[in-house]
Amino acid sequence: MTGKKNKTLPRLQPNYKLWLEHAGEYVLGPGAYALLRSIHTTGSISQAAKDLEMSYRYAWGVIRKIEAKLNAKLVQSYKGGHHGGGGATITDYGLSLMELYDHVNRQFSDFIATLE
Amino acid sequence: MTGKKNKTLPRLQPNYKLWLEHAGEYVLGPGAYALLRSIHTTGSISQAAKDLEMSYRYAWGVIRKIEAKLNAKLVQSYKGGHHGGGGATITDYGLSLMELYDHVNRQFSDFIATLE
Repeated sequence: MTGKKNKTLPRLQPNYKLWLEHAGEYVLGPGAYALLRSIHTTGSISQAAKDLEMSYRYAWGVIRKIEAKLNAKLVQSYKGGHHGGGGATITDYGLSLMELYDHVNRQFSDFIATLE
Repeated sequence: MTGKKNKTLPRLQPNYKLWLEHAGEYVLGPGAYALLRSIHTTGSISQAAKDLEMSYRYAWGVIRKIEAKLNAKLVQSYKGGHHGGGGATITDYGLSLMELYDHVNRQFSDFIATLE
């Protein structure tokens, strides 16, 4: 006897990862969403990458991959500006994508709250 | 001009991975659930592992890890039986865990269907 029989389950919480697909292919998940959000907030890809502890190169890779899949620009980078170092803004298309993810994610987290 | 401006989002489908946590720690996700289900159906860990294209050793590792986290047995293996090769059954505790995962997963997939 192991003393492990007839036990009841402890309190288990559901958790999830949510992503958006296009034609069955992965497009955008929480990591890319966080990156876009951080670029939107900081106005800088390098600052956003730093905040999320990823390399600038990796951050651009994440963006370029999604842009290629959707055939649309998400981030517009520019030179110059206030500090002379350039910056980046999220395109209207990118903002729509962020809104969609955020909307679905909120519905998910509201739903999960009803399960507990 | 890149011709990539003023586009509207294509049809994007949400998808998710669901798992159960205990005290904030990952316990059971779709892979382990599929393994338990396959053991339940086939009555054999080695057959279940083969069906899921994992090694027997890996399959046992998945089970042992969850058993250690919950301090309960999920799978009972035995020697002999019909074909002399032994077999495995899911304990009542394991069945409860599977039912919980399946229940939450159904609720998730029903919910996601309402979003489309």
